[in-house]
Amino acid sequence: MSSGIITLTTDFGLADSYVAQMKGVILGINPAAVIVDVTHQVEVQNIAAGSAILNEMIDAFPPDAIHVAVIDPGVGSDRALVAVETDQGRFVLPDNGLLSAIARRYPPGRIFRLTNRRFWRRTVSNTFHGRDILAPVAAHWSLGTSAAEFGEAQPSLVTLPLPTPTHDGERMTGEILHIDRFGNLVTSIEEAHLGGWSCEQLQVECNGQIVHGLKTHYAEVEPEALVALIGSSGRLEIALRNGNAARELNATVGARVQVRRHSP
Amino acid sequence: MSSGIITLTTDFGLADSYVAQMKGVILGINPAAVIVDVTHQVEVQNIAAGSAILNEMIDAFPPDAIHVAVIDPGVGSDRALVAVETDQGRFVLPDNGLLSAIARRYPPGRIFRLTNRRFWRRTVSNTFHGRDILAPVAAHWSLGTSAAEFGEAQPSLVTLPLPTPTHDGERMTGEILHIDRFGNLVTSIEEAHLGGWSCEQLQVECNGQIVHGLKTHYAEVEPEALVALIGSSGRLEIALRNGNAARELNATVGARVQVRRHSP
Amino acid sequence: MSSGIITLTTDFGLADSYVAQMKGVILGINPAAVIVDVTHQVEVQNIAAGSAILNEMIDAFPPDAIHVAVIDPGVGSDRALVAVETDQGRFVLPDNGLLSAIARRYPPGRIFRLTNRRFWRRTVSNTFHGRDILAPVAAHWSLGTSAAEFGEAQPSLVTLPLPTPTHDGERMTGEILHIDRFGNLVTSIEEAHLGGWSCEQLQVECNGQIVHGLKTHYAEVEPEALVALIGSSGRLEIALRNGNAARELNATVGARVQVRRHSP
Repeated sequence: MSSGIITLTTDFGLADSYVAQMKGVILGINPAAVIVDVTHQVEVQNIAAGSAILNEMIDAFPPDAIHVAVIDPGVGSDRALVAVETDQGRFVLPDNGLLSAIARRYPPGRIFRLTNRRFWRRTVSNTFHGRDILAPVAAHWSLGTSAAEFGEAQPSLVTLPLPTPTHDGERMTGEILHIDRFGNLVTSIEEAHLGGWSCEQLQVECNGQIVHGLKTHYAEVEPEALVALIGSSGRLEIALRNGNAARELNATVGARVQVRRHSP
Repeated sequence: MSSGIITLTTDFGLADSYVAQMKGVILGINPAAVIVDVTHQVEVQNIAAGSAILNEMIDAFPPDAIHVAVIDPGVGSDRALVAVETDQGRFVLPDNGLLSAIARRYPPGRIFRLTNRRFWRRTVSNTFHGRDILAPVAAHWSLGTSAAEFGEAQPSLVTLPLPTPTHDGERMTGEILHIDRFGNLVTSIEEAHLGGWSCEQLQVECNGQIVHGLKTHYAEVEPEALVALIGSSGRLEIALRNGNAARELNATVGARVQVRRHSP
Repeated sequence: MSSGIITLTTDFGLADSYVAQMKGVILGINPAAVIVDVTHQVEVQNIAAGSAILNEMIDAFPPDAIHVAVIDPGVGSDRALVAVETDQGRFVLPDNGLLSAIARRYPPGRIFRLTNRRFWRRTVSNTFHGRDILAPVAAHWSLGTSAAEFGEAQPSLVTLPLPTPTHDGERMTGEILHIDRFGNLVTSIEEAHLGGWSCEQLQVECNGQIVHGLKTHYAEVEPEALVALIGSSGRLEIALRNGNAARELNATVGARVQVRRHSP
């Protein structure tokens, strides 16, 4: 029995009816689908941001969940649409790099190009493949159709270069990937990158401010103090306890973050 | 078996609990209802905008879906609340013109005025009929109650004048109905209005800029170029490939759009 | 049979994937849960605002609904997480005052501190207990687990002082609790506080403007006129018919509102 979960991640916003149109198509095919909005506020046409948010959330879902992502600047061009199987989720999305971050953790298994019009909406617009191809394919997949029926297999996916921290002896350099509503700065440096380093020894620097040590809780520092810790997605984060680190540091996405071992 | 789908379109926004209160009332009556948010960001009390968004989205839903719309500047006045049957959906809404755009495509069948308090919430506030009358009526309808039980039949609905393009020989004049999150300009000119005209011959003008020809895909023009095409809702749209046409043209809702056949 | 309803009220916003992560965890445990978003736009870390919105919406839900609230500035500190039973809903939230407003109407019954890790996610982050503790506990509760299994009972909850109107003979003084999307000013003065006073005799004053009488409908005054009435949550509200009272009065949350009996 499938969980019937279909998640939606788009750059459509919530003021238009585009998201609802996708849901109407899904429910028309699988009335028992359990649709979950991830976010519809991905920056318009920002594939890297979409890739990061997909990567951040899939571990919270059952592995049979189907994740539809529509950040699709190439709609109507010859970019492919694909169905992709992995060990931690199934994906229906344009083959434009959206799966790049996930693919480093969960290598794609079978990949099928969506060419079989039998699983599309009868009339297909040239500007809204999310509604007319991705949504109905996801709905059919959730009902048990084999992905092999959606079209011919293809061997690999388009991949984006991902921001990867660099090492230089005692110094690691990464960047701010994302700033959340709390002003927490989520960086490209993962817990694993810091493997051998001791938490007390670390210094984290961003925009000229230095944070000493890696804590485990916000509450380990005083209110209004900066704190560095591993956040809920396994990445180094800089936060301001009961405040907004982005404002405090005047930090923006892409800003450099350095981690050093300070001399004992 | 009904699909149990109930959609919600309101001007309530997402910061308040009004939408959730409607959902609580619906689920208290029909725990199996499948509730879909269309949008809650219709401009406050803008009935024409609500009418346009209802018209844009209903074709994506099964015809037995129930669509509740609450853009209701007359709440507490003597405006009627109605249940309306059409061939492409059932509607529960104030009789204030919200169905005007849909009615041109799907003429209303039976219309019932919601006067039977048996289907209302026990206590009815004077300021939130969406929660206290529309939501419970929609829930009962989704359970199979006949609409005739909700109150007496009425013959017709309040209708708003709709923006309709005008013809003048070789020139058609319409307006911008809506600007979406991508900055695409959705116009009042529908595909059918352009019936006999050849795509290559057309010129579309808005705010002094001319777009030549009607394309089928964004990708038919260069990145950052303007393109005119029929969008996913069957309307003439002006877009900027991989950019924002509204910003490029400094265009706002209501701005005039002209289509001409240019001399060959 | 439980309704399976689980509502979510947070300060997470909708741009990040935090809300979706909570939903993924819930559905992984109870695939039949019916999840309803109340709002995710509570002002960041504003417990009083969260308390008010919970209080505003619970009467619309069946009494067996489970309400999860995550406005949690103390995450990772020693503040408790609790499951609370009341006659009008079950609650899973930090013990930080979020239930204060509800507790005045529906006194908490049994309270259990969430200490039994059997009902948590296997790995628990230090910064996202909403996903790793509250969501899975709520899901297990919706499946029928007794709250007594979640941890040891505790006798009472942290309580916030609530804004309560003061009386001074012929004058009552309250404040603006909340301003909604329509610009309606929701006050701390409840219908019950005005018990013995006659509606015609009342004068409501805010920011130097006086509104005469307490009406029952917006439509009892002319368009663009101020009106005072009891709103849909049972509180005194000041509205501008077909307009925005907050802009008209230049009013903000916390501003003083006075009600007087005017001399006949």
